[in-house]
Amino acid sequence: MKAFSKRDLAVSSIRRFLEPGPIVLVSSAWKGETNIMTMGWHTVMEFTPSLVGCMISSGNHSFGLIKASKQCVINIPTYDLAKQVVGIGNCSGADVDKFAKFKLTAVEADQVEAPLIKECYANFECRIVDASLLDKYSFFIMEVVKARAAISPKVPRTIHYRGDGQFMVSGREVSFRRMFRPENL
Amino acid sequence: MKAFSKRDLAVSSIRRFLEPGPIVLVSSAWKGETNIMTMGWHTVMEFTPSLVGCMISSGNHSFGLIKASKQCVINIPTYDLAKQVVGIGNCSGADVDKFAKFKLTAVEADQVEAPLIKECYANFECRIVDASLLDKYSFFIMEVVKARAAISPKVPRTIHYRGDGQFMVSGREVSFRRMFRPENL
Repeated sequence: MKAFSKRDLAVSSIRRFLEPGPIVLVSSAWKGETNIMTMGWHTVMEFTPSLVGCMISSGNHSFGLIKASKQCVINIPTYDLAKQVVGIGNCSGADVDKFAKFKLTAVEADQVEAPLIKECYANFECRIVDASLLDKYSFFIMEVVKARAAISPKVPRTIHYRGDGQFMVSGREVSFRRMFRPENL
Repeated sequence: MKAFSKRDLAVSSIRRFLEPGPIVLVSSAWKGETNIMTMGWHTVMEFTPSLVGCMISSGNHSFGLIKASKQCVINIPTYDLAKQVVGIGNCSGADVDKFAKFKLTAVEADQVEAPLIKECYANFECRIVDASLLDKYSFFIMEVVKARAAISPKVPRTIHYRGDGQFMVSGREVSFRRMFRPENL
């Protein structure tokens, strides 16, 4: 599997990878147990602090680990991991060790107990900062406390879920920078 | 400009177009004034009711119109509207009539006062159902009460913002349907 060389990224700049809307892998840990889940319902909410909001159904085995530990890692997989992503979304951490089953490498994180997934393009370490919408919407508000991303390529080839087993693969990049007001960049 | 033939869509199925993460145009109306803004920070939150969460900064002229009317329309523009999208994001409704300036057609909505944008691929009429996170995060929780989308093409060529004037254009579609558990489709 592809191995990326990574470097630290300002936590305020993760929108570059998250705002385009890729499916992500969320890794978690609690009392010696780790797990991975797929997540498509997420949004950037603020630059500083670096906030991300995401919906994680209580039906997911990861829900309990994330709620108890108040931490997780958002990992961005690329197209070459698509089959693992689909596999991860179609089995439960209650039954299997997903790191072992999908041959993914758990790497120690810097700021949280949850492991990074080495094979992913980027890894954002998160702490839950607001759980007030958990009962009503299963919606977690998290702060990204540490971020790293691959040095190359400049942007990842990500997969974006439509439901019904169908994904959109990220296409070409276009810049409209010249049309922007400087304060909007 | 392209004119799409549209049909109604079940409100529970809007994730097909929103979950991949496109930049959207939000249209609003209040006391005879209309406006359009760009929005990249949004997420699906539930199928039924059909909920969408989105961050709209109070610095936007649209913020006041949406907060007062408790309504808006989420419109999905395609790549051929990219220059208009960038233009809309780089001027203020306090100064200009954006429908006129960008030659977009306001069409009467069915369930809300805010107008649809005819030239967009899809239009989701929304009512604000929870404003409890407005003061802290400028985060609106909306219910999609009516949805329509173009009949053809099956999926739109959307643009996805990375910040810094740069967009990703949606690429090809891939299906992993065979690998899904039926209950996960």
